Amino acid sequence: MSKIAYVNGRYVRQSDAAVNIEDRGYQFGDGIYEVVHLYAGRYVDEALHLARLERSLGEIRLPMPMSRAALSLVLREVARRNRVTEGLLYMQVTRGVARRDHPFPAKPVPPALVVTVKRIPPYPTDIEKWQSACITLPDLRWARRDIKSTNLLPNVLARQAAREQGAIEAILYDEATGMVTEGAATTFWIVDAQGAIRTRFQDQVILPGCTRAALMAELKAAGIPWDERPFSLEDLRAAREAFITSATSFVRPITKVDGAPVGDGKVGPVVRRLFELFARHVKGDLRNAA
Amino acid sequence: MSKIAYVNGRYVRQSDAAVNIEDRGYQFGDGIYEVVHLYAGRYVDEALHLARLERSLGEIRLPMPMSRAALSLVLREVARRNRVTEGLLYMQVTRGVARRDHPFPAKPVPPALVVTVKRIPPYPTDIEKWQSACITLPDLRWARRDIKSTNLLPNVLARQAAREQGAIEAILYDEATGMVTEGAATTFWIVDAQGAIRTRFQDQVILPGCTRAALMAELKAAGIPWDERPFSLEDLRAAREAFITSATSFVRPITKVDGAPVGDGKVGPVVRRLFELFARHVKGDLRNAA
Repeated sequence: MSKIAYVNGRYVRQSDAAVNIEDRGYQFGDGIYEVVHLYAGRYVDEALHLARLERSLGEIRLPMPMSRAALSLVLREVARRNRVTEGLLYMQVTRGVARRDHPFPAKPVPPALVVTVKRIPPYPTDIEKWQSACITLPDLRWARRDIKSTNLLPNVLARQAAREQGAIEAILYDEATGMVTEGAATTFWIVDAQGAIRTRFQDQVILPGCTRAALMAELKAAGIPWDERPFSLEDLRAAREAFITSATSFVRPITKVDGAPVGDGKVGPVVRRLFELFARHVKGDLRNAA
Repeated sequence: MSKIAYVNGRYVRQSDAAVNIEDRGYQFGDGIYEVVHLYAGRYVDEALHLARLERSLGEIRLPMPMSRAALSLVLREVARRNRVTEGLLYMQVTRGVARRDHPFPAKPVPPALVVTVKRIPPYPTDIEKWQSACITLPDLRWARRDIKSTNLLPNVLARQAAREQGAIEAILYDEATGMVTEGAATTFWIVDAQGAIRTRFQDQVILPGCTRAALMAELKAAGIPWDERPFSLEDLRAAREAFITSATSFVRPITKVDGAPVGDGKVGPVVRRLFELFARHVKGDLRNAA
């Protein structure tokens, strides 16, 4: 079966799905995107993702291409037409097609909307197999990482560097201060030397992670404390446990950083608990359903 | 007559010219571009632009899509098919089409190449009409501005802010130090309070401007000294004259910054001389022809 994509109002074969070369997404990266996990036919944390999409668009002064409710129907239709129930939804909104010039088109053009979905392997059940390695790299990205834009070249280069070192993610840090910001496409967390669950507080320096927010809500509901306090590379090296979160990583143990073990190099008890907590969130959306 | 674009080996009507939605240029801004001025049927400083293209591609580990000689033929053919002799050439190379994943495609795919040309108004002859205004803004871009990538969202936002304030360009500065970097899409120069022609030295913080390099060669040939020394916003406010250079600006006097006049607010003698010098470069390519 051919894959089907939604492109600007039409459902088309993905191999034929195209945008004009003067789409501002192609020439300027003038666009916003979201990735949503589809589990058992349901988009996980969909409301968080649609809210973040609208927020990012607002920050670059783009309107939503349609209402959240209408967009939600498109997301469902893309999954249905592709007969995918376990997958990753990708959507991208750009400032449309216009003669190339840096400022916004003088005569407004409709934003472009592209939606695709792809199958992914079954949700991880064996946390031992889900553990992975990271490297660390200076954070070279622009100043507004809170905007989920398609200006992803630094992220691409960081992820490529990680892959070449047998790692799945690059943990980025501010070169001037040595403080960790986040992963190239994930939120990064540690269980510090004192046992505290820590991740950086939210501002323009990092992306407002939807999985981060969903996990925090579950932590709160479960009465598990956490601390939104930045940490340094040194803190990371002294950490007992580490993990990443994202719509594609869920809660993923990081047991090796730059080739050295995190803590004793094994999946720790805190990450194990959070992995299970988040699996329940994904599978039952317990808190939202409650 | 329809405009004709070159897209991945084919000459097609520009209105139909399209790339797949999974072109990495569209989803990641994983690409490099160049803009070249076409004057009287000749590409100005073409060798500099092709060398910079190859350098930028190398920095993100992309090969040239074809040899410089072959590419040069494509540029000529695009101009010929569009019957344009005064215009702007745009070319963009991206990492091709692959299933979305941040790292480079595991199986290499051919890079994508898009080339277009558009007509522009005649070369400015009246420097008084060519003078313009700038605003100043913090430089929010990533750390590798020496790479001419299509990750241009910060540049788009800066240019839009400029336009909304009746200016043509935003002069960017390092927020921590107050030192000017460059324009959002131009090199920025001043004639300082002591009469020295100054622009920032070249490193990863600014783009290696082709027009900057061409002007410097002409300055050298003409025995006019200049100083590659960074300057602050304060130096700019005390400057006698200011101007920008780029493939689309040539030498363009900036007589107003943030609403205040530069020097006496009139086109000054140094900028006038350099404007004429560069016009001779464009029209006769004097130095290269010599």
